[in-house]
Amino acid sequence: PSESNLIRATLFPGDGIGPEIAESVKQIFKVADCPIEWEEHFVGTEIDPRTQSFLTWESLESVRNNKVGLKGPMATPIGKGHRSLNLTLRKELNLYANVRPCYSLPGYKTKYDDVDLITIRENTEGEYSGLEHQVVRGVVESLKIITRQASLRVAEYAFYYAKAHGRQRVSAIHKANIMQKTDGLFLKCCREVAEKYPEITYEEVVIDNCCMMLVKNPALFDVLVMPNLYGDIISDLCAGLIGGLGLTPSCNIGEGGIALAEAVHGSAPDIAGKNLANPTALLLSSVSMLRHLKLHDKADRIQDAVLKTIAEGKYRTGDLGGKSTTTEFTHAICDHL
Amino acid sequence: PSESNLIRATLFPGDGIGPEIAESVKQIFKVADCPIEWEEHFVGTEIDPRTQSFLTWESLESVRNNKVGLKGPMATPIGKGHRSLNLTLRKELNLYANVRPCYSLPGYKTKYDDVDLITIRENTEGEYSGLEHQVVRGVVESLKIITRQASLRVAEYAFYYAKAHGRQRVSAIHKANIMQKTDGLFLKCCREVAEKYPEITYEEVVIDNCCMMLVKNPALFDVLVMPNLYGDIISDLCAGLIGGLGLTPSCNIGEGGIALAEAVHGSAPDIAGKNLANPTALLLSSVSMLRHLKLHDKADRIQDAVLKTIAEGKYRTGDLGGKSTTTEFTHAICDHL
Ligand SMILES: CC(C)[C@H](C(=O)O)[C@@H](O)C(=O)O
Ligand SMILES: CC(C)[C@H](C(=O)O)[C@@H](O)C(=O)O
Repeated sequence: PSESNLIRATLFPGDGIGPEIAESVKQIFKVADCPIEWEEHFVGTEIDPRTQSFLTWESLESVRNNKVGLKGPMATPIGKGHRSLNLTLRKELNLYANVRPCYSLPGYKTKYDDVDLITIRENTEGEYSGLEHQVVRGVVESLKIITRQASLRVAEYAFYYAKAHGRQRVSAIHKANIMQKTDGLFLKCCREVAEKYPEITYEEVVIDNCCMMLVKNPALFDVLVMPNLYGDIISDLCAGLIGGLGLTPSCNIGEGGIALAEAVHGSAPDIAGKNLANPTALLLSSVSMLRHLKLHDKADRIQDAVLKTIAEGKYRTGDLGGKSTTTEFTHAICDHL
Repeated sequence: PSESNLIRATLFPGDGIGPEIAESVKQIFKVADCPIEWEEHFVGTEIDPRTQSFLTWESLESVRNNKVGLKGPMATPIGKGHRSLNLTLRKELNLYANVRPCYSLPGYKTKYDDVDLITIRENTEGEYSGLEHQVVRGVVESLKIITRQASLRVAEYAFYYAKAHGRQRVSAIHKANIMQKTDGLFLKCCREVAEKYPEITYEEVVIDNCCMMLVKNPALFDVLVMPNLYGDIISDLCAGLIGGLGLTPSCNIGEGGIALAEAVHGSAPDIAGKNLANPTALLLSSVSMLRHLKLHDKADRIQDAVLKTIAEGKYRTGDLGGKSTTTEFTHAICDHL
């Protein structure tokens, strides 16, 4: 692609295995001729007073300006007086929806072979309000906050996404039989939005029942939308169905059209720097980023190459039972491009 | 057993299929010669002002006096101005621990064949406080309450149970990385109790990771203890692994040594009265009740007979893919006694 057509995207390689898997993405994007120019940012070594965290102000500005980015794993440094890096990103960039497509990878066997669903998680409030206090000695409380604004926003995104991706059904996950006011408001907002999408089936499923149905028959679900903590739980459960967080992409949608894709697995310090890491989650996240940019051709090509490489099984990293290095796996994908 | 040795136990047959599956338990207890005298109580048709619910004061008094009981499914009547029957029981009887053994049933195939774990759920507080309000229009909050007293109480029970049942490990499930104060207090209490049981391995697992591990490899877990909502979610997830709520027993432990065993599935009004219901969950719950009474011989005999009948597969109810009636299934179990 010619210089002038390049889209600038922020890249946070992150910690641990982050730089190695980010390298894999950069290579594959080059071979696939993706019109992306990366602007790399690293987690700082000191707290930036403007962000109260190890994330620099400049790195956040970069995402705000580019409106699109990709993020590797970030290990929040131990110690007090600063916020988790992931939570800081969500808050500072107003990343209100966390979207995780989760589908069975052809050729990679788990107990489930028919998973094909999307979890869409409210990412800014709910049980993650950070509002907690001790009432009296031995009695503590946490506040779960649900607002009409944030609920409508994530519901709108879920239905928009469902329609854009040809999905048939949106399930709102809740516990409104117990939390009638908070989860009740969340459901009310989902229902309001659902009315604007008569072509999409809308249903409401209680979270405990949802988890039971997911492990019995995940094919029952299509797009799921839910408050923050339920999304945290259910997205990991779904990742488990298809093999774990090393295989699932994630993309955070923020106000003003921001999309920050991320691998949600850890930084795996034990294997960092050893050329052993599996770049799949970051690669599939970069595919989500491309789709957000409507670069569906590039997205399809890369996704196909990744899936084919895994399906063939000749080159697989250790976490998938193989013996390949990150580099060998990456080359195999490039060969498929 | 002679009259004088009889132990009185309260029986709530419950609604829908409740009376049929309760009948099955009564028959099997007779054939197995269990020294139990049932005191039956029914859900009222009007609100009892002393309980503010359709549960009569007398029925609660019966459990308080007998200290042991068995409960079928109860459908909370629709309408305002009264509390859910299940929540009323938990609150009024101070049923602080909900214990659900969950194990793969030999011969009944699911995707998992190595499940053998116990979930122990705090049953009185947490996200179920009922404290909710609207802060301003469009902003609502729910309070999650964690107390030292209730956390210690359920942790004590979990370790006591683990030891009494020869279990090796207790995992406390939490989200203390986000809810540092509430879940943090819960963990602190678990740690305190764990110190008194050096022979039992204690670990802490974040709930999202726990759900992923459970669907990937449930054999990693033994006894799990957790706050109310996590217990609600995880116990249903685990039930799903082995086939659903129709197969899993449950027992509620209350202050003063009360044990109220219950089938946690619904009342299935669609098949009520048709002799089609599967009594397994209520039967295995009655086994939990017998174990609580230290009647392990009787418990073993009934449990074996139920499991053998299911394993043989000749007599199975419709929910398990069979064609037997409740009566036929019950007779088959009696034949095994
Ligand atoms: C690390 C943790 C704070 C985070 C969360 O709870 O949201 C993680 O589990 C996730 O899902 O991104
Ligand atoms: C019916 C509902 C209130 C109840 C709960 O949430 O506790 C149920 O799911 C259970 O697990 O017993």
